[in-house]
Amino acid sequence: MNSNISRQILSSEYHDLNGNHIDVLDEPPTALEFSRLAHISRPVLIRGMQTPSVRLWDDEYLAATMGKAKISVAVTPNGRADAVTRAPDGKLYFVEPHVEQMSISDLFSKLSRENDDSDVYYLQSQNGNVYSSRFFEGTGDPSEFEALRADIPGEISWCSEAFGRPPDAVNLWIGSHKSVTSIHSDPYENIYTVVRGSKQFTLLPPSEGSCLQERMYPHGTWTRQGTETGLTLTPSTNASPIRWSSVIDPDIPGNLPPDAHPICITLEPGETLYLPPGWWHHVRQGANTIALNWWYDMEMRGMAWVLLSFLRGAGPVPSGNDEDD
Amino acid sequence: MNSNISRQILSSEYHDLNGNHIDVLDEPPTALEFSRLAHISRPVLIRGMQTPSVRLWDDEYLAATMGKAKISVAVTPNGRADAVTRAPDGKLYFVEPHVEQMSISDLFSKLSRENDDSDVYYLQSQNGNVYSSRFFEGTGDPSEFEALRADIPGEISWCSEAFGRPPDAVNLWIGSHKSVTSIHSDPYENIYTVVRGSKQFTLLPPSEGSCLQERMYPHGTWTRQGTETGLTLTPSTNASPIRWSSVIDPDIPGNLPPDAHPICITLEPGETLYLPPGWWHHVRQGANTIALNWWYDMEMRGMAWVLLSFLRGAGPVPSGNDEDD
Repeated sequence: MNSNISRQILSSEYHDLNGNHIDVLDEPPTALEFSRLAHISRPVLIRGMQTPSVRLWDDEYLAATMGKAKISVAVTPNGRADAVTRAPDGKLYFVEPHVEQMSISDLFSKLSRENDDSDVYYLQSQNGNVYSSRFFEGTGDPSEFEALRADIPGEISWCSEAFGRPPDAVNLWIGSHKSVTSIHSDPYENIYTVVRGSKQFTLLPPSEGSCLQERMYPHGTWTRQGTETGLTLTPSTNASPIRWSSVIDPDIPGNLPPDAHPICITLEPGETLYLPPGWWHHVRQGANTIALNWWYDMEMRGMAWVLLSFLRGAGPVPSGNDEDD
Repeated sequence: MNSNISRQILSSEYHDLNGNHIDVLDEPPTALEFSRLAHISRPVLIRGMQTPSVRLWDDEYLAATMGKAKISVAVTPNGRADAVTRAPDGKLYFVEPHVEQMSISDLFSKLSRENDDSDVYYLQSQNGNVYSSRFFEGTGDPSEFEALRADIPGEISWCSEAFGRPPDAVNLWIGSHKSVTSIHSDPYENIYTVVRGSKQFTLLPPSEGSCLQERMYPHGTWTRQGTETGLTLTPSTNASPIRWSSVIDPDIPGNLPPDAHPICITLEPGETLYLPPGWWHHVRQGANTIALNWWYDMEMRGMAWVLLSFLRGAGPVPSGNDEDD
């Protein structure tokens, strides 16, 4: 409880000083300009970051380039991969998606045929699916998207220069308006750009994490018993409980407490979001959305990591199922 | 008390992560390298920052260049300007120095004749005595050291580029081993370089401010009634009490509590210290020391300022004289 009061002080004073302001740049910053912005550690909307090859990216081009290569696609009945979900047993679980291998044209076909009753497909493997740190270390880095690497820069030059290191992971994201990313934070510097479609971010600063009421949830996975059957929420055996926000849709007015000050940003094609480490983000997207992101390791020296840990809070976290037991 | 526990957590975790490490550079950083270091916000010892003209600075050159120009010199009986001092009435005061106008050759003469009984002279006007922000704004900036400006760069290029702004103040410091600067912190980015002599810094990170046991002290000034009489500690009327550390000599073993982790750095001629905002510093110096410093405004956006205020602690500060009353 003691620490909670300190967090409230930091949260309200941070908001008093910074408000909901975010910088908007009409063109990408220089490395030095970006280094200053990263020091401030607030989101920045960046326009004009051109990735020339990805302008060619329509379904036909991508299907022709990728051919029959199999990619790992997340499947859920509700569009909520890695999210808190109530199981038929009445308990809430943190549920990871079922993963299916398919060609990119199969994915486009699934996305185009989605209806209210169908499963939701989302390419969100987010493990450095285009480039991982092994690529930059030169130790071999096979990728399901090898064929698209020629179109996707491994590094954002002003970003790598500012941080003095290459990315830790570069990811491709493809999905529909039915996919939603539950609110969470990452200990990474994040450069997120929309190729087509749109992304609606709801952001909270690290200082407002207590508004998200993290709880411990048992772990589960969406599983499919046979190829023709539906998905089943299967509790995991031997998996540790997961600490996750109990606020399912923070973008819906009234779902956050009054001391939260969410920042809402919609990224259109060609727009890029700089999202600093520890910023909480919930993401919705438009139909037929393709995005790319570059994760860079955060600076661990100094106070940044210590402060993020403090703001998230140490000590025991209550179960998310206490009320239901 | 609640906030104090949080400060202790931040302090011990900050020390666990960073230890007493400081970076040492053999040559000045580029603007981008320095921007990264400023982000980490730990002290850096920088060698090889050459300020060519100041190599000419011996007493004769300085006396010839400055001529009869009057400079403002701090005078105390004990070498402790801006420090907590016990008055004959038994109470502790925060005492500012007496200030005398004299030529630079008079100052050198006073410094060379100092003995155990004499008053201590220290050029430490620290108000941007070489350049103030008005100089960079082009609005006219008279200086007692006008004649030396040709020798003193107004800006450190890699620093101005990293911060995206010119300095707020550039100061010249001239004194003897009898002058001591009591421990305090400034809300500025500080580049401090020694021209001759030496400076011994005792540093504590912002997270260890509570080790310094700040107290409120009534304000006083060293005054001289006539030109031939000694200095008298004169309590100020109508001055607000001053919040200051009650640890007089933090460099003496045992004077700091065990959870303080002081970093001791001695700067020799040609060496430069980057001291980030909020770092506590106590400074001793060798005989015949000349130094220069460049203060840059700190970045107020983001969390830095909020965190420094939090670490210093809000709420009532006890009187430094309670025990004696």
